[in-house]
Amino acid sequence: MAETRIVRIRESVLRENRVQASILRKRLAASGVVMVNLMSSPGSGKTSIILHTIAALRERFRIAVIEADIDSTVDADKMIAAGVPAVQIETGGFCHVDAAMAQAAIQELPLNTLDVLFLENVGNLICTAQHDTGAHVNVAILSVPEGDDKPLKYPVMFQAADVVIVNKTDYMAIAEFDINAVRQRIAVLNQAVTILPVSCRSGEGIADWIEWLTARITSVAGNR
Amino acid sequence: MAETRIVRIRESVLRENRVQASILRKRLAASGVVMVNLMSSPGSGKTSIILHTIAALRERFRIAVIEADIDSTVDADKMIAAGVPAVQIETGGFCHVDAAMAQAAIQELPLNTLDVLFLENVGNLICTAQHDTGAHVNVAILSVPEGDDKPLKYPVMFQAADVVIVNKTDYMAIAEFDINAVRQRIAVLNQAVTILPVSCRSGEGIADWIEWLTARITSVAGNR
Repeated sequence: MAETRIVRIRESVLRENRVQASILRKRLAASGVVMVNLMSSPGSGKTSIILHTIAALRERFRIAVIEADIDSTVDADKMIAAGVPAVQIETGGFCHVDAAMAQAAIQELPLNTLDVLFLENVGNLICTAQHDTGAHVNVAILSVPEGDDKPLKYPVMFQAADVVIVNKTDYMAIAEFDINAVRQRIAVLNQAVTILPVSCRSGEGIADWIEWLTARITSVAGNR
Repeated sequence: MAETRIVRIRESVLRENRVQASILRKRLAASGVVMVNLMSSPGSGKTSIILHTIAALRERFRIAVIEADIDSTVDADKMIAAGVPAVQIETGGFCHVDAAMAQAAIQELPLNTLDVLFLENVGNLICTAQHDTGAHVNVAILSVPEGDDKPLKYPVMFQAADVVIVNKTDYMAIAEFDINAVRQRIAVLNQAVTILPVSCRSGEGIADWIEWLTARITSVAGNR
Protein backbone atom coordinates (compact mmCIF):
# COMPACT_ATOMS: atom_id res chain seq x y z
CA MET A 1 0.00 0.00 0.00
CA ALA A 2 2.53 2.59 1.13
CA GLU A 3 4.81 1.71 -1.76
CA THR A 4 2.17 2.19 -4.42
CA ARG A 5 1.25 5.57 -3.01
CA ILE A 6 4.83 6.78 -3.07
CA VAL A 7 5.33 5.64 -6.65
CA ARG A 8 2.32 7.61 -7.85
CA ILE A 9 3.44 10.76 -6.08
CA ARG A 10 6.92 10.35 -7.55
CA GLU A 11 5.62 9.93 -11.08
CA SER A 12 3.63 13.15 -11.03
CA VAL A 13 6.48 15.08 -9.39
CA LEU A 14 8.96 13.73 -11.95
CA ARG A 15 6.64 14.59 -14.84
CA GLU A 16 6.15 18.17 -13.63
CA ASN A 17 9.90 18.49 -13.14
CA ARG A 18 10.64 17.40 -16.72
CA VAL A 19 8.38 20.19 -18.04
CA GLN A 20 10.08 22.81 -15.85
CA ALA A 21 13.53 21.50 -16.83
CA SER A 22 12.74 21.77 -20.53
CA ILE A 23 11.61 25.39 -20.12
CA LEU A 24 14.74 26.26 -18.12
CA ARG A 25 17.04 24.61 -20.69
CA LYS A 26 15.54 26.71 -23.50
CA ARG A 27 15.69 29.89 -21.44
CA LEU A 28 19.38 29.36 -20.64
CA ALA A 29 20.23 28.61 -24.29
CA ALA A 30 18.38 31.76 -25.39
CA SER A 31 20.58 33.71 -22.95
CA GLY A 32 23.71 32.10 -24.41
CA VAL A 33 24.44 30.08 -21.25
CA VAL A 34 25.36 26.37 -21.33
CA MET A 35 24.63 24.54 -18.06
CA VAL A 36 26.80 21.54 -17.15
CA ASN A 37 25.46 19.27 -14.36
CA LEU A 38 28.02 17.15 -12.48
CA MET A 39 26.72 14.11 -10.61
CA SER A 40 28.45 11.40 -8.55
CA SER A 41 28.59 9.62 -5.20
CA PRO A 42 29.87 11.67 -2.26
CA GLY A 43 33.63 12.17 -2.49
CA SER A 44 34.14 11.09 -6.11
CA GLY A 45 35.77 14.40 -7.01
CA LYS A 46 33.11 16.75 -8.39
CA THR A 47 34.64 19.83 -6.77
CA SER A 48 38.18 18.96 -7.91
CA ILE A 49 37.03 18.33 -11.49
CA ILE A 50 35.21 21.68 -11.55
CA LEU A 51 38.22 23.56 -10.18
CA HIS A 52 40.54 21.96 -12.78
CA THR A 53 38.02 22.66 -15.55
CA ILE A 54 37.61 26.30 -14.61
CA ALA A 55 41.37 26.76 -14.51
CA ALA A 56 41.56 25.44 -18.09
CA LEU A 57 38.53 27.30 -19.50
CA ARG A 58 38.37 30.63 -17.68
CA GLU A 59 40.32 32.52 -20.36
CA ARG A 60 37.87 31.37 -23.01
CA PHE A 61 34.49 31.39 -21.23
CA ARG A 62 32.82 33.44 -18.50
CA ILE A 63 31.98 30.88 -15.81
CA ALA A 64 29.88 30.63 -12.65
CA VAL A 65 29.06 27.71 -10.36
CA ILE A 66 25.97 26.56 -8.48
CA GLU A 67 26.90 24.41 -5.48
CA ALA A 68 24.24 22.15 -4.01
CA ASP A 69 24.57 20.48 -0.64
CA ILE A 70 22.27 19.16 2.05
CA ASP A 71 24.11 21.45 4.41
CA SER A 72 27.33 23.51 4.63
CA THR A 73 29.03 25.90 2.19
CA VAL A 74 32.36 24.00 2.05
CA ASP A 75 32.40 23.75 -1.75
CA ALA A 76 31.04 27.24 -2.51
CA ASP A 77 33.78 28.61 -0.26
CA LYS A 78 36.38 26.77 -2.39
CA MET A 79 34.93 28.27 -5.58
CA ILE A 80 34.91 31.81 -4.19
CA ALA A 81 38.49 31.29 -2.98
CA ALA A 82 39.34 30.40 -6.60
CA GLY A 83 37.76 33.67 -7.75
CA VAL A 84 34.69 32.08 -9.35
CA PRO A 85 31.18 33.48 -8.81
CA ALA A 86 29.26 30.82 -6.85
CA VAL A 87 25.72 30.43 -5.56
CA GLN A 88 25.02 27.87 -2.83
CA ILE A 89 21.81 25.85 -2.72
CA GLU A 90 21.25 24.31 0.69
CA THR A 91 18.73 21.61 -0.16
CA GLY A 92 17.59 21.21 3.44
CA GLY A 93 17.53 17.43 3.34
CA PHE A 94 16.70 17.01 -0.33
CA CYS A 95 18.96 14.46 -1.95
CA HIS A 96 19.08 16.00 -5.43
CA VAL A 97 18.64 19.24 -7.36
CA ASP A 98 15.49 19.56 -9.47
CA ALA A 99 14.62 22.18 -12.09
CA ALA A 100 12.82 24.43 -9.58
CA MET A 101 15.87 24.54 -7.31
CA ALA A 102 18.19 25.22 -10.27
CA GLN A 103 15.84 27.98 -11.45
CA ALA A 104 15.86 29.58 -7.98
CA ALA A 105 19.67 29.57 -7.90
CA ILE A 106 19.95 30.93 -11.44
CA GLN A 107 17.87 33.95 -10.49
CA GLU A 108 20.76 34.97 -8.24
CA LEU A 109 23.17 35.09 -11.21
CA PRO A 110 23.63 37.73 -13.95
CA LEU A 111 22.99 35.40 -16.92
CA ASN A 112 23.90 38.00 -19.55
CA THR A 113 27.50 38.08 -18.30
CA LEU A 114 27.96 34.29 -18.40
CA ASP A 115 28.81 31.61 -20.99
CA VAL A 116 29.03 28.46 -18.87
CA LEU A 117 27.31 27.52 -15.63
CA PHE A 118 28.49 24.46 -13.69
CA LEU A 119 26.01 22.81 -11.35
CA GLU A 120 27.69 20.68 -8.70
CA ASN A 121 24.81 18.43 -7.72
CA VAL A 122 24.33 16.75 -4.32
CA GLY A 123 26.60 13.72 -3.81
CA ASN A 124 24.19 10.96 -4.78
CA LEU A 125 24.46 8.29 -7.48
CA ILE A 126 20.71 7.65 -7.60
CA CYS A 127 18.25 10.51 -7.12
CA THR A 128 20.27 13.13 -9.00
CA ALA A 129 20.07 11.03 -12.17
CA GLN A 130 16.29 10.77 -11.88
CA HIS A 131 15.73 14.54 -11.81
CA ASP A 132 16.36 16.64 -14.91
CA THR A 133 17.89 19.94 -13.75
CA GLY A 134 17.56 21.75 -17.09
CA ALA A 135 21.27 21.26 -17.82
CA HIS A 136 22.50 20.87 -21.43
CA VAL A 137 25.32 18.51 -20.49
CA ASN A 138 25.12 15.74 -17.87
CA VAL A 139 28.39 14.47 -16.44
CA ALA A 140 28.64 11.37 -14.24
CA ILE A 141 31.81 10.86 -12.22
CA LEU A 142 32.79 7.39 -10.99
CA SER A 143 35.91 7.25 -8.86
CA VAL A 144 38.19 4.21 -8.92
CA PRO A 145 37.95 3.43 -5.16
CA GLU A 146 34.16 3.01 -5.51
CA GLY A 147 34.64 -0.14 -7.57
CA ASP A 148 33.95 -1.30 -11.11
CA ASP A 149 30.51 -2.81 -10.34
CA LYS A 150 28.72 0.53 -10.02
CA PRO A 151 27.14 0.53 -13.54
CA LEU A 152 25.46 -2.78 -12.60
CA LYS A 153 24.03 -1.37 -9.39
CA TYR A 154 23.18 2.21 -10.39
CA PRO A 155 22.15 1.92 -14.06
CA VAL A 156 20.02 5.10 -14.22
CA MET A 157 23.05 7.33 -13.64
CA PHE A 158 24.95 5.78 -16.52
CA GLN A 159 21.89 6.04 -18.78
CA ALA A 160 21.41 9.74 -17.93
CA ALA A 161 25.05 10.74 -18.55
CA ASP A 162 26.48 12.28 -21.73
CA VAL A 163 29.98 11.56 -20.43
CA VAL A 164 31.38 9.40 -17.63
CA ILE A 165 34.60 10.58 -16.00
CA VAL A 166 36.42 7.66 -14.35
CA ASN A 167 38.22 9.75 -11.74
CA LYS A 168 41.11 9.10 -9.34
CA THR A 169 42.95 6.80 -11.76
CA ASP A 170 45.98 7.38 -9.50
CA TYR A 171 44.30 4.88 -7.13
CA MET A 172 44.31 2.23 -9.87
CA ALA A 173 47.56 0.70 -8.59
CA ILE A 174 46.09 -0.27 -5.21
CA ALA A 175 42.42 -0.74 -6.15
CA GLU A 176 40.96 -3.80 -7.83
CA PHE A 177 39.33 -1.92 -10.70
CA ASP A 178 38.84 -3.27 -14.22
CA ILE A 179 38.21 -0.31 -16.54
CA ASN A 180 37.40 -2.61 -19.46
CA ALA A 181 34.66 -4.20 -17.38
CA VAL A 182 33.33 -0.68 -16.64
CA ARG A 183 33.33 0.15 -20.36
CA GLN A 184 31.41 -3.04 -21.18
CA ARG A 185 28.91 -2.52 -18.36
CA ILE A 186 28.22 1.08 -19.42
CA ALA A 187 27.98 0.14 -23.13
CA VAL A 188 25.04 -2.14 -22.33
CA LEU A 189 23.21 0.83 -20.76
CA ASN A 190 24.20 3.72 -23.02
CA GLN A 191 25.93 3.43 -26.38
CA ALA A 192 26.19 7.22 -26.91
CA VAL A 193 28.23 7.96 -23.79
CA THR A 194 31.90 8.96 -23.78
CA ILE A 195 34.14 7.46 -21.06
CA LEU A 196 37.18 9.45 -19.96
CA PRO A 197 39.77 8.23 -17.40
CA VAL A 198 41.03 11.20 -15.36
CA SER A 199 43.25 11.92 -12.37
CA CYS A 200 43.07 15.39 -10.86
CA ARG A 201 46.20 14.54 -8.87
CA SER A 202 48.46 13.41 -11.74
CA GLY A 203 46.70 15.43 -14.45
CA GLU A 204 46.08 12.30 -16.55
CA GLY A 205 43.18 12.72 -18.95
CA ILE A 206 42.35 16.32 -17.98
CA ALA A 207 43.25 17.56 -21.50
CA ASP A 208 40.92 14.98 -23.12
CA TRP A 209 38.09 16.03 -20.81
CA ILE A 210 38.64 19.74 -21.55
CA GLU A 211 38.65 19.02 -25.28
CA TRP A 212 35.43 16.98 -25.04
CA LEU A 213 33.67 19.62 -22.92
CA THR A 214 34.77 22.56 -25.09
CA ALA A 215 33.38 20.83 -28.19
CA ARG A 216 30.09 20.14 -26.40
CA ILE A 217 29.77 23.71 -25.06
CA THR A 218 30.47 25.12 -28.53
CA SER A 219 27.92 22.77 -30.06
CA VAL A 220 25.15 23.70 -27.59
CA ALA A 221 25.92 27.42 -27.92
CA GLY A 222 25.90 27.15 -31.74
CA ASN A 223 22.51 25.40 -31.82
CA ARG A 224 20.55 28.00 -29.91
CA MET B 1 5.44 26.13 -4.82
CA ALA B 2 6.64 22.73 -6.02
CA GLU B 3 9.16 22.56 -3.18
CA THR B 4 6.58 23.20 -0.48
CA ARG B 5 4.31 20.52 -1.90
CA ILE B 6 7.09 17.94 -1.94
CA VAL B 7 8.11 18.75 1.62
CA ARG B 8 4.57 18.16 2.92
CA ILE B 9 4.25 14.84 1.10
CA ARG B 10 7.63 13.78 2.47
CA GLU B 11 6.68 14.66 6.04
CA SER B 12 3.58 12.48 6.03
CA VAL B 13 5.40 9.60 4.31
CA LEU B 14 8.26 9.83 6.83
CA ARG B 15 5.84 9.95 9.76
CA GLU B 16 3.95 6.87 8.58
CA ASN B 17 7.27 5.09 8.02
CA ARG B 18 8.43 5.79 11.60
CA VAL B 19 5.28 4.12 12.96
CA GLN B 20 5.78 1.05 10.75
CA ALA B 21 9.47 0.88 11.68
CA SER B 22 8.69 0.95 15.39
CA ILE B 23 6.22 -1.95 15.01
CA LEU B 24 8.72 -3.97 12.97
CA ARG B 25 11.53 -3.36 15.50
CA LYS B 26 9.35 -4.70 18.34
CA ARG B 27 8.21 -7.68 16.28
CA LEU B 28 11.81 -8.64 15.46
CA ALA B 29 12.92 -8.29 19.08
CA ALA B 30 10.01 -10.47 20.21
CA SER B 31 11.23 -13.12 17.75
CA GLY B 32 14.76 -12.89 19.16
CA VAL B 33 16.19 -11.29 16.00
CA VAL B 34 18.49 -8.24 16.05
CA MET B 35 18.49 -6.26 12.78
CA VAL B 36 21.64 -4.35 11.82
CA ASN B 37 21.28 -1.73 9.05
CA LEU B 38 24.45 -0.80 7.12
CA MET B 39 24.43 2.52 5.25
CA SER B 40 27.06 4.32 3.15
CA SER B 41 27.84 5.90 -0.20
CA PRO B 42 28.19 3.51 -3.15
CA GLY B 43 31.46 1.60 -2.97
CA SER B 44 32.39 2.36 0.64
CA GLY B 45 32.58 -1.32 1.54
CA LYS B 46 29.22 -2.42 2.99
CA THR B 47 29.41 -5.87 1.35
CA SER B 48 33.01 -6.46 2.44
CA ILE B 49 32.24 -5.42 6.02
CA ILE B 50 29.24 -7.78 6.12
CA LEU B 51 31.27 -10.70 4.73
CA HIS B 52 34.06 -10.17 7.30
CA THR B 53 31.51 -9.80 10.10
CA ILE B 54 29.67 -12.99 9.17
CA ALA B 55 32.97 -14.90 9.04
CA ALA B 56 33.70 -13.76 12.61
CA LEU B 57 30.20 -14.27 14.06
CA ARG B 58 28.72 -17.28 12.26
CA GLU B 59 29.82 -19.79 14.93
CA ARG B 60 28.05 -17.75 17.60
CA PHE B 61 24.91 -16.45 15.85
CA ARG B 62 22.53 -17.68 13.15
CA ILE B 63 22.74 -14.98 10.48
CA ALA B 64 20.86 -13.92 7.33
CA VAL B 65 21.23 -10.91 5.04
CA ILE B 66 18.81 -8.64 3.20
CA GLU B 67 20.47 -7.02 0.18
CA ALA B 68 18.89 -3.90 -1.28
CA ASP B 69 19.82 -2.49 -4.68
CA ILE B 70 18.20 -0.36 -7.35
CA ASP B 71 18.95 -3.20 -9.72
CA SER B 72 21.10 -6.38 -9.95
CA THR B 73 21.74 -9.23 -7.53
CA VAL B 74 25.55 -8.81 -7.44
CA ASP B 75 25.72 -8.58 -3.63
CA ALA B 76 23.11 -11.26 -2.84
CA ASP B 77 25.05 -13.60 -5.11
CA LYS B 78 28.21 -12.93 -3.02
CA MET B 79 26.33 -13.76 0.20
CA ILE B 80 24.88 -16.97 -1.18
CA ALA B 81 28.37 -17.92 -2.44
CA ALA B 82 29.56 -17.43 1.17
CA GLY B 83 26.83 -19.83 2.36
CA VAL B 84 24.65 -17.15 3.99
CA PRO B 85 20.87 -17.06 3.51
CA ALA B 86 20.14 -13.85 1.55
CA VAL B 87 17.02 -12.09 0.29
CA GLN B 88 17.36 -9.48 -2.45
CA ILE B 89 15.19 -6.35 -2.54
CA GLU B 90 15.26 -4.71 -5.95
CA THR B 91 14.01 -1.24 -5.10
CA GLY B 92 13.09 -0.41 -8.70
CA GLY B 93 14.49 3.11 -8.60
CA PHE B 94 13.94 3.80 -4.90
CA CYS B 95 17.03 5.25 -3.31
CA HIS B 96 16.59 3.78 0.16
CA VAL B 97 14.92 0.99 2.12
CA ASP B 98 11.93 1.92 4.27
CA ALA B 99 10.13 -0.15 6.92
CA ALA B 100 7.56 -1.51 4.45
CA MET B 101 10.30 -2.81 2.13
CA ALA B 102 12.21 -4.34 5.06
CA GLN B 103 8.98 -5.96 6.27
CA ALA B 104 8.31 -7.45 2.82
CA ALA B 105 11.82 -8.94 2.68
CA ILE B 106 11.60 -10.29 6.24
CA GLN B 107 8.47 -12.26 5.31
CA GLU B 108 10.72 -14.35 3.04
CA LEU B 109 12.92 -15.38 5.99
CA PRO B 110 12.35 -17.99 8.74
CA LEU B 111 12.69 -15.59 11.71
CA ASN B 112 12.53 -18.34 14.35
CA THR B 113 15.80 -19.84 13.04
CA LEU B 114 17.73 -16.53 13.13
CA ASP B 115 19.60 -14.41 15.69
CA VAL B 116 21.01 -11.59 13.56
CA LEU B 117 19.75 -10.05 10.33
CA PHE B 118 22.02 -7.71 8.36
CA LEU B 119 20.35 -5.21 6.04
CA GLU B 120 22.70 -3.91 3.36
CA ASN B 121 20.94 -0.70 2.40
CA VAL B 122 21.12 1.02 -1.00
CA GLY B 123 24.40 2.92 -1.56
CA ASN B 124 23.28 6.40 -0.57
CA LEU B 125 24.61 8.74 2.11
CA ILE B 126 21.41 10.80 2.27
CA CYS B 127 18.02 9.15 1.82
CA THR B 128 18.85 5.96 3.69
CA ALA B 129 19.53 7.96 6.88
CA GLN B 130 16.14 9.69 6.64
CA HIS B 131 14.16 6.44 6.58
CA ASP B 132 13.95 4.26 9.70
CA THR B 133 14.04 0.62 8.53
CA GLY B 134 13.08 -0.91 11.87
CA ALA B 135 16.69 -1.92 12.57
CA HIS B 136 18.02 -2.06 16.15
CA VAL B 137 21.53 -0.98 15.18
CA ASN B 138 22.39 1.64 12.55
CA VAL B 139 25.89 1.52 11.06
CA ALA B 140 27.31 4.28 8.84
CA ILE B 141 30.40 3.50 6.79
CA LEU B 142 32.64 6.31 5.54
CA SER B 143 35.55 5.20 3.36
CA VAL B 144 38.84 7.10 3.40
CA PRO B 145 38.88 7.92 -0.36
CA GLU B 146 35.57 9.79 0.03
CA GLY B 147 37.27 12.51 2.06
CA ASP B 148 37.14 13.85 5.60
CA ASP B 149 34.57 16.58 4.88
CA LYS B 150 31.59 14.21 4.59
CA PRO B 151 30.18 14.83 8.11
CA LEU B 152 29.91 18.53 7.19
CA LYS B 153 28.00 17.81 3.99
CA TYR B 154 25.84 14.83 5.02
CA PRO B 155 25.05 15.49 8.70
CA VAL B 156 21.84 13.43 8.91
CA MET B 157 23.74 10.18 8.28
CA PHE B 158 26.14 10.86 11.15
CA GLN B 159 23.26 11.83 13.44
CA ALA B 160 21.35 8.61 12.62
CA ALA B 161 24.30 6.27 13.20
CA ASP B 162 25.06 4.29 16.37
CA VAL B 163 28.55 3.57 15.03
CA VAL B 164 30.65 5.01 12.21
CA ILE B 165 33.12 2.65 10.55
CA VAL B 166 35.91 4.62 8.85
CA ASN B 167 36.73 1.99 6.23
CA LYS B 168 39.61 1.46 3.79
CA THR B 169 42.24 2.84 6.18
CA ASP B 170 44.77 1.11 3.89
CA TYR B 171 44.17 4.08 1.53
CA MET B 172 45.26 6.51 4.24
CA ALA B 173 48.84 6.62 2.92
CA ILE B 174 47.82 8.12 -0.43
CA ALA B 175 44.64 9.98 0.53
CA GLU B 176 44.52 13.37 2.24
CA PHE B 177 42.32 12.29 5.13
CA ASP B 178 42.43 13.72 8.65
CA ILE B 179 40.73 11.26 11.00
CA ASN B 180 40.92 13.67 13.91
CA ALA B 181 38.99 16.22 11.85
CA VAL B 182 36.39 13.51 11.15
CA ARG B 183 36.12 12.73 14.87
CA GLN B 184 35.61 16.43 15.69
CA ARG B 185 33.05 16.94 12.90
CA ILE B 186 31.03 13.90 13.99
CA ALA B 187 31.22 14.85 17.71
CA VAL B 188 29.39 18.10 16.92
CA LEU B 189 26.53 16.09 15.39
CA ASN B 190 26.34 13.05 17.65
CA GLN B 191 28.08 12.62 20.99
CA ALA B 192 26.83 9.05 21.54
CA VAL B 193 28.38 7.57 18.39
CA THR B 194 31.37 5.20 18.35
CA ILE B 195 33.98 5.71 15.60
CA LEU B 196 35.99 2.68 14.47
CA PRO B 197 38.81 2.78 11.87
CA VAL B 198 38.79 -0.44 9.83
CA SER B 199 40.49 -1.97 6.81
CA CYS B 200 38.96 -5.10 5.31
CA ARG B 201 42.13 -5.55 3.28
CA SER B 202 44.69 -5.40 6.11
CA GLY B 203 42.30 -6.55 8.86
CA GLU B 204 42.99 -3.44 10.96
CA GLY B 205 40.18 -2.69 13.38
CA ILE B 206 38.01 -5.69 12.46
CA ALA B 207 38.39 -7.18 15.96
CA ASP B 208 37.28 -3.90 17.60
CA TRP B 209 34.24 -3.73 15.31
CA ILE B 210 33.30 -7.37 16.07
CA GLU B 211 33.64 -6.71 19.81
CA TRP B 212 31.47 -3.56 19.59
CA LEU B 213 28.80 -5.30 17.51
CA THR B 214 28.69 -8.44 19.66
CA ALA B 215 28.12 -6.31 22.77
CA ARG B 216 25.35 -4.38 21.03
CA ILE B 217 23.63 -7.53 19.71
CA THR B 218 23.77 -9.11 23.16
CA SER B 219 22.37 -5.95 24.73
CA VAL B 220 19.41 -5.70 22.31
CA ALA B 221 18.68 -9.43 22.61
CA GLY B 222 18.83 -9.18 26.44
CA ASN B 223 16.35 -6.28 26.56
CA ARG B 224 13.53 -7.92 24.69
